[in-house]
Amino acid sequence: MSTGYFKDIQKIRFEGPDSTYPLAFRHYDPNEVVMGKRMEDHLRFAVAYWHTFVWPGGDPFGGQTFERPWFEDSMAAAKLKADVAFEFFDLLGVPYYCFHDADVRPEGKSFAENTKNLNEIVDYFAGKQQQTGVKLLWGTANLFSHRRYMSGAATNPDPDVFAFAAATVKTCMDATVKLGGENYVLWGGREGYETLLNTNLKQELDQLGRFVNMVVEYKHKIGFKGAILIEPKPQEPTKHQYDYDVATVYGFLKSYGLENEVKLNIEQGHAILAGHSFEHELALANALGLFGSIDMNRNDYQSGWDTDQFPNNVPEMALAYYQVLAGGGFTTGGTNFDAKLRRQSLDAEDLLIGHIGGMDCCARGLKAAAKMIEDKALSGPLDARYAGWSTEDGRKRLTSMSLEDLAAHVEATDLNPQPRSGRQEYLENVVNRYV
Amino acid sequence: MSTGYFKDIQKIRFEGPDSTYPLAFRHYDPNEVVMGKRMEDHLRFAVAYWHTFVWPGGDPFGGQTFERPWFEDSMAAAKLKADVAFEFFDLLGVPYYCFHDADVRPEGKSFAENTKNLNEIVDYFAGKQQQTGVKLLWGTANLFSHRRYMSGAATNPDPDVFAFAAATVKTCMDATVKLGGENYVLWGGREGYETLLNTNLKQELDQLGRFVNMVVEYKHKIGFKGAILIEPKPQEPTKHQYDYDVATVYGFLKSYGLENEVKLNIEQGHAILAGHSFEHELALANALGLFGSIDMNRNDYQSGWDTDQFPNNVPEMALAYYQVLAGGGFTTGGTNFDAKLRRQSLDAEDLLIGHIGGMDCCARGLKAAAKMIEDKALSGPLDARYAGWSTEDGRKRLTSMSLEDLAAHVEATDLNPQPRSGRQEYLENVVNRYV
Amino acid sequence: MSTGYFKDIQKIRFEGPDSTYPLAFRHYDPNEVVMGKRMEDHLRFAVAYWHTFVWPGGDPFGGQTFERPWFEDSMAAAKLKADVAFEFFDLLGVPYYCFHDADVRPEGKSFAENTKNLNEIVDYFAGKQQQTGVKLLWGTANLFSHRRYMSGAATNPDPDVFAFAAATVKTCMDATVKLGGENYVLWGGREGYETLLNTNLKQELDQLGRFVNMVVEYKHKIGFKGAILIEPKPQEPTKHQYDYDVATVYGFLKSYGLENEVKLNIEQGHAILAGHSFEHELALANALGLFGSIDMNRNDYQSGWDTDQFPNNVPEMALAYYQVLAGGGFTTGGTNFDAKLRRQSLDAEDLLIGHIGGMDCCARGLKAAAKMIEDKALSGPLDARYAGWSTEDGRKRLTSMSLEDLAAHVEATDLNPQPRSGRQEYLENVVNRYV
Amino acid sequence: MSTGYFKDIQKIRFEGPDSTYPLAFRHYDPNEVVMGKRMEDHLRFAVAYWHTFVWPGGDPFGGQTFERPWFEDSMAAAKLKADVAFEFFDLLGVPYYCFHDADVRPEGKSFAENTKNLNEIVDYFAGKQQQTGVKLLWGTANLFSHRRYMSGAATNPDPDVFAFAAATVKTCMDATVKLGGENYVLWGGREGYETLLNTNLKQELDQLGRFVNMVVEYKHKIGFKGAILIEPKPQEPTKHQYDYDVATVYGFLKSYGLENEVKLNIEQGHAILAGHSFEHELALANALGLFGSIDMNRNDYQSGWDTDQFPNNVPEMALAYYQVLAGGGFTTGGTNFDAKLRRQSLDAEDLLIGHIGGMDCCARGLKAAAKMIEDKALSGPLDARYAGWSTEDGRKRLTSMSLEDLAAHVEATDLNPQPRSGRQEYLENVVNRYV
Repeated sequence: MSTGYFKDIQKIRFEGPDSTYPLAFRHYDPNEVVMGKRMEDHLRFAVAYWHTFVWPGGDPFGGQTFERPWFEDSMAAAKLKADVAFEFFDLLGVPYYCFHDADVRPEGKSFAENTKNLNEIVDYFAGKQQQTGVKLLWGTANLFSHRRYMSGAATNPDPDVFAFAAATVKTCMDATVKLGGENYVLWGGREGYETLLNTNLKQELDQLGRFVNMVVEYKHKIGFKGAILIEPKPQEPTKHQYDYDVATVYGFLKSYGLENEVKLNIEQGHAILAGHSFEHELALANALGLFGSIDMNRNDYQSGWDTDQFPNNVPEMALAYYQVLAGGGFTTGGTNFDAKLRRQSLDAEDLLIGHIGGMDCCARGLKAAAKMIEDKALSGPLDARYAGWSTEDGRKRLTSMSLEDLAAHVEATDLNPQPRSGRQEYLENVVNRYV
Repeated sequence: MSTGYFKDIQKIRFEGPDSTYPLAFRHYDPNEVVMGKRMEDHLRFAVAYWHTFVWPGGDPFGGQTFERPWFEDSMAAAKLKADVAFEFFDLLGVPYYCFHDADVRPEGKSFAENTKNLNEIVDYFAGKQQQTGVKLLWGTANLFSHRRYMSGAATNPDPDVFAFAAATVKTCMDATVKLGGENYVLWGGREGYETLLNTNLKQELDQLGRFVNMVVEYKHKIGFKGAILIEPKPQEPTKHQYDYDVATVYGFLKSYGLENEVKLNIEQGHAILAGHSFEHELALANALGLFGSIDMNRNDYQSGWDTDQFPNNVPEMALAYYQVLAGGGFTTGGTNFDAKLRRQSLDAEDLLIGHIGGMDCCARGLKAAAKMIEDKALSGPLDARYAGWSTEDGRKRLTSMSLEDLAAHVEATDLNPQPRSGRQEYLENVVNRYV
Repeated sequence: MSTGYFKDIQKIRFEGPDSTYPLAFRHYDPNEVVMGKRMEDHLRFAVAYWHTFVWPGGDPFGGQTFERPWFEDSMAAAKLKADVAFEFFDLLGVPYYCFHDADVRPEGKSFAENTKNLNEIVDYFAGKQQQTGVKLLWGTANLFSHRRYMSGAATNPDPDVFAFAAATVKTCMDATVKLGGENYVLWGGREGYETLLNTNLKQELDQLGRFVNMVVEYKHKIGFKGAILIEPKPQEPTKHQYDYDVATVYGFLKSYGLENEVKLNIEQGHAILAGHSFEHELALANALGLFGSIDMNRNDYQSGWDTDQFPNNVPEMALAYYQVLAGGGFTTGGTNFDAKLRRQSLDAEDLLIGHIGGMDCCARGLKAAAKMIEDKALSGPLDARYAGWSTEDGRKRLTSMSLEDLAAHVEATDLNPQPRSGRQEYLENVVNRYV
Repeated sequence: MSTGYFKDIQKIRFEGPDSTYPLAFRHYDPNEVVMGKRMEDHLRFAVAYWHTFVWPGGDPFGGQTFERPWFEDSMAAAKLKADVAFEFFDLLGVPYYCFHDADVRPEGKSFAENTKNLNEIVDYFAGKQQQTGVKLLWGTANLFSHRRYMSGAATNPDPDVFAFAAATVKTCMDATVKLGGENYVLWGGREGYETLLNTNLKQELDQLGRFVNMVVEYKHKIGFKGAILIEPKPQEPTKHQYDYDVATVYGFLKSYGLENEVKLNIEQGHAILAGHSFEHELALANALGLFGSIDMNRNDYQSGWDTDQFPNNVPEMALAYYQVLAGGGFTTGGTNFDAKLRRQSLDAEDLLIGHIGGMDCCARGLKAAAKMIEDKALSGPLDARYAGWSTEDGRKRLTSMSLEDLAAHVEATDLNPQPRSGRQEYLENVVNRYV
C-alpha cells in the first residue's frame, strides 16, 4: 500500500539517450554490461537517508523550506518516513541505502531509549528490505549533531562523552550487522578543533586511535565481514578535522596500527574542500591500498563550504570512475549519493529528478572510463613514460644503488638527461574523445 | 675590505622599543635572556641566500627589477655575491645562513663542472665563515629550477634524472658537512604532478621513498650529525606536491620506515597554502615528534600563491613560538627567513629593513610566548579541560575497555554527559594580554 | 529588577592594561580622549541582537548548544529576552544596539500579526532605551530566514514576495524611526542566485534597484535623517549575492541613481569572503565616498564561510581604524559587533567576555591608528610618493594632455623614467611601531 | 617557403568525431552552419602570440623549458618568430591572432627605438596578413613586464611613467589600426597595489579614469571603428587589481563616464580567481551591456594563480557559449586562446594539439548552446518563472508603487506568498541532455 507521497509517479525506466522525459534514465541501464559486469553491479548506487528524507532545507541563514508529512520526532513519523523511503528506493531502482541512527529513529531522552528506538526501526527496516530487495550499503552513528558532542565524540576532553560515543557506535554496528550492511562508516564531524588554544592534539589523536581500534576489535569479535570505512573531511563544522584527507588518514592509520583494518569512504565535496581534485583522492587511496567506497556528490567550485550537490559533470565522473576501475572496482563499497536537493527544490518529484540526473551522470562516466581502460587510452602512454624503470638498470636504481653509486655513475658517464614532453594536452584531448 | 654595497650602513644595533631609527632593532636584543636562554640562542636566525642575494625581482608577469652588481653567471660574480652576503650577515648580526647549490655557484655545463664550481665556492664560504663566525644552518640542492627536473627529480619518469638528482644531493650534503651545516633540507618543488593523466602515483611515491632512504643512509655513512629535514608544501609550482603538509609527510615517512630519521622544516606560507594555520602545522609536528626547523615568512591571506613576505604580525608570531617553546625549542633547527622583499623594494637598505622588521616581530612573539608558558596562561586551562583523562577511570577507557565494556557502563549508569564551555573567547583574550 | 541571568556580574569597568580580571576592560576606557574625542564617541560600539540573544549555537552539522531561558517563540519570551539584552548593554557599557525584526518579536501567522508583534516590542524597547540611555544604531528587516524568501526578497521571481518584502521593510523603517535609530540597514542575504540556470540577472537587478529606490523615497517622505546602508557580502547563503563587495555595490548604486543616497555597512568577514582585506574595503569605500558603518568581526582565514568571530588581532584593527579615521571617522555609523560566540562557549559570562575582548581589541587599534595619523607616519611618505602629481606638470597630465601630447613629450624628451623603491617593508615596520 | 619548424605537419582538417588522429579536428568544422551562421564566424578563434610564441616555459620556481629557434631579442629573431606564427595560424586554420607590442618586437633602449622596432614588425605582419588572410582580432600594449611599470603604468605614482605608458598605448593603437585590428585591449596587470600602505587609491583610480578617457578620445580622433576592451582580473601579479571583475569595471566606467565607450574582454581564469564562474561574468556583462570578447582558457580549480590552460570541459563551454549566444553573439569580439601549454609540453606539435583540443571543446560547447537556445530548453522555464512580472500588476510594482502602496496592498489582501520549486536539478539534467 503506497503512502501516496509520490502520487502517480511510476518506476523510473531506462529510455535511452534521446528521451526527454524528466522521470526516465537516459544513460543508466542497470542491465547493460560494461567490462563484463552489469552496470548495477559496477556502480552499486545507494541513497542517503539523511539528505533525502531528513534534511529540512535549512541553511545558516534560513530555516526549513521542505514540508514533508513525516517531519516530526515520533516513532509514527519515523515509520512513515521509512515507508516513503523504501517506496523511493523502489521507484528509483537503487539496490542500496545508507543511514545514521539519528536519521531513522526519534531522539530519546537517554541512551537506553535511543537504543530501543533504533532497534524498533531496525526491525521495521528488516521487513522493508525483505519486501523490496533493497540492501544496506552501510550504517553509521551520528556523533556530531547532539550538543553532547559539541567538543568531539571520540576526541572529547570528557571521557564520559567518549564512552557515550563508543556505546552508540556499538548499537549502530549491531544494527548494521542485523540489516546485513556491507560496510560500517566513521565520519568524525566533531573529531577536530575550533581553536588550538583549548586543544591537546596528541591526547585527542590518541583517543581517536584507541576508538577506531575498539571498533575494529568489536568487528572481529562479532564476525562482521564488511569493511570499516573512515570518511575524510578537512573542516566544517570544525576548523580542522583530524581525518583531513586521504593522506592524513593514511598516516593516522599507520600510527595506530590500523592500515590493514580500515579503508576509506571518499567524497567529492570533501576532496574539493581539502584542496584536491576528486580523482586525486581516489588515485591516492588506490596507491595506498585504502580505497573502499564513494560518497558521490559535487561541491560548488566557488563556495567554501560543503554544498553536497548532485554530480552533473560527465568529464569529471569519467575521471573518477577511471580511478575506481583502475583499482579493480568496488568490492564491499558503492556509490552513495551524499547529495541533497537545493533548498528551493521543493517538490516530491525533485527528489527523484536529482537522483536520476546523478545516476545518469555516473553511468556516462563509468562507460567512458571503461572504454578508456579497454583501449589502454591512458595506460598505454603512461606505461611508455615510465618504461625506464622496468629495465634492469632502472630497477637497480630503486633497490641496490646508493647515493655514492649514483654519483659515480653520473660522473663516469657524464650523464646529462634530456627532458621529454609530458604531453598533457594530448592526453586531455584523448579523454575528450571518450566523454 | 668592504664591497661598498651597503655604503655607510653600520652594524644594526638594539636600540629598544622607542627607537624610530629604521636601521635598528627595537625588540631583538640577542643577549636578552628569555626562559633562561639568550634570545639569539632561542631564535637561531638565518638569512636565506636565494631570496636575499639571488632573486632578481621577477614575477610571472614581469622581469627583473633589482639591479645587483653580482647578477651575472660567473665565478667572479659568485664571489662578489658571497662577499656582499657575509657583509650582510655581519651587519645584521645573524648567526646563520642557508643556501641551495644553485644560489651560490655558476651553472656548469655538466655535473662535473657544477661540482667543481660548488666546491670552489664552498672553500670560499669556509674562509668567510671563519672570519665572521657566521654558521651554516642548512644546505640543500636546487632540484627544481633546471629544465631537466621539469617532470620531477626523485620522482621523474626517467631514471637518469633520478640518478642526476641523487648525485647532486650527494655533492650538496658533502658541501653542507664541509661547512659544518647543522641540518640538510629536502624541498621537493617538482616532486609532484601537473596532471594525473601522465602520472603513476605509486611508482613516484616509491621513488621518493627510496630517494630519502638513500639520503639517510648516506648521512649515517659519512657520520653527519645534523638533521635531515623535509619541507612540506602543498602545491606551486606543481598542481600537487607529494610533501603536501605535515600530516602527509608523516604518512610518507611511516610508509618508508623513515619516521625516526627525518624531521620537518615548516614554513608559514606553505601552511597557509595547504589550508592550515602556521601554528597548526607546528603543533601537529610536535604531536607527531617531527618538529625540526622553521622557514619563517608570511603568506598574504588573499593571494593563492607563495608570497614569501617578511612576517609582521606579532600575535601570529606569538602563537607560532608558543608551539616551538612548548615542544622544547629548537635543537639543530632555527628560524630561517624564507622571505623576500617585494619587487618594488629596490634599495640595498630595504634588504636590511625587511630582515630587521622580521627579527623584531619574531623577538616580540618569542617573548610573549615565553611569558605565556611561564604563567601557564594556556596550559593551565588546558590541563584542567582534559583532567578527566588523568583519573584512573579515564585511563582505563583509553587502554583496557572495549566497545562493549563502555556500552555496558553507559547503560548501567544511564550516563548522560553534559557539555562544558570551551571558553575560546576567554583564551583569546588571555593571549591578547601577552601580545 | 534584574533577570538574574548574569548572576552577580557587575558593570564592566576599565582597569588598565595590567588587569588580569577577565570581566574588565584593559584598553577600552570610554572617556579616554583620542584625537580630541572620547573613545566612546569614536568607536560607537553596538551589540548585535541576533548573535548575542537569538542564535542557538547551531551549525550545518549540529543543533542548539545554548540554553537560554528565553528560547521560545512567544511574546513573553521576547520580553524576557529584551530584559536580558538591556541588562547586557548596561553591564557592558555599550551605547548602541542593532536588531532585525525577526530577532525581537515572535513570528506571526500573517503580515498583520508580525507588524502587531513588532510594534508591541518596539514600545517595550522604547521604555528600555529611556531607562538605560542605550540607543539604536540601526534597525533592519530579516528578509532571508523565512521560506517565503528562499528565492529572494526584492529579487524574487514572484512579485508578491517583492510586495511582502517591501511592506516588511516599511514596518522596520517605521520601527527604527520610532526608536530613534541612526541608520537603516539592508543586507540582501537572499538577493542573489543559486544557479544562473533559473535566474534572470537583469530582471533581478532592476527589481533590486527599484526596491532600494523605494526605500530612499520613503526615507525622505517620512523625514528620516539617518543613513540608508547596504551591507555587501559576496556569497553565503547564496552562491552569488548581488551586493558582492564595495566596488560592486558602487556600480549598482550608480546604475540606479542611488550613489548619493546610500552608504555602506562594511563587515570584516564579508570582505575576507570576497577575497579582500578589510582595510581594502574600507579604503575603497572612502575613495568612493560610500563609507557608512562597520560590522565588526573576524573571519577565520582558513574557513570558506562566514565565521563571525570576535576580532582579536590588534594590528589588523589598527589598519581598519586607520581607514576609518583617515576618512574622518564615523558620523551616523558605528562599530557593531556582528560577532557570535563559538557554539562551545556556553556560559552567560562568555557573552560578556567575547564582547570585552572585541572592544579592547578595537580600542587598541583605534589608539594606534590615531597615533599614526597624528604622527603622519604613513601619510607623510604617501604624500611624498605622489608628489609629482601635485606639480603643475603633473596636474596637466591628468587634465589637459592627450595621448598624442604625451607621446610627443616622451619623444621630445627621450623620457625614460626610473623606478623608485616602494618601501613596503619599511612601512610595515613603521606600523609595527604603533601596534 | 616554410621555416620547417612544424616539419611535415599538414593543415589541420576536420575529420569528424570518430577520428583518433591527434592532429585533426573532431568537432570544429569551420563551415558547419549553426543557428544560421558558419562556426568560424560564430567562434572567431584567435591565437595569442605571447603564450604560443613568446613564453619560454618558466614558472616562479623554474626557468625556460622550451627551446625555440627564435628565442633571442633581435629583429631577425622577431621575424623568424613571425614566420613561424603565421605558418601556425595557417596550419591551424584560425582567422585571427592577438599580440602585445613586447611580444613581437625586440626591446629597444628608448621609446623611439621601441616604436621603430614595432613599426618595422607591423609592416612585416601586414605582408603576412595579406598572404595568409589571417586578421588581427586585437592589439595591446604590454604595460606590465618592464621594471619601469613595477608600481603601475597609468596608476604609477610617477607622472613620467604615466606619460611613457600613454605614449606606448598610442603607438600600439596606431599599430592595431594599421593592421586592421578589430579591437584594442587594455589589461592593467600593474594597475593595482601590493600594499595599501604606500597607495593612494583615489588618486590612482582618477589616473586610470583619465587614462582610459584619453584612449577613447584618441580612438575617436583617429576614427578607429573597433571596440576598446578592458580585461578584468582580480589580482596577480598585484595583490589587488583595480579592474577586479565585471561588476567592478562597470562601476569604474560609470564613475568616469565611460560606460558607453568601453566593453569587456572576459577571461575564464580571471573569473575563477575573482571567485566567480565564467558564465557569471559573461551573464553579468550581458546584463550590464558590456560584453565584448573572450579570453578563452581554463583555470585549475585547485590552484590559486592564473594557470591559463586550454579549455577541456565541454559542459562548461556549453554554459559559456550559451551566454554569448543569448547576448546575440560576438560582434567585433572573438574567442582568443589566452592559453599556454604546460611547461612540460615541449614539442612543436604540442602547440597544435593544445589549440586543436581547445577549438574542438569550444565547438562542442557552441553547438550544445545553440541547440539549447533553439529548443528554448532553458529560456522557456525561465520566462515562466518570471511571468508574474509581465502582468500589469507586476509591472506596476516595478514602476509606480511605493513602499506604502505595497504595504497597503499586503495588508488589504492578507498576502502570504507561497514559494515554488526552483527546479535546479531539473534544469541541470536538461543541460546534460545537450552536452
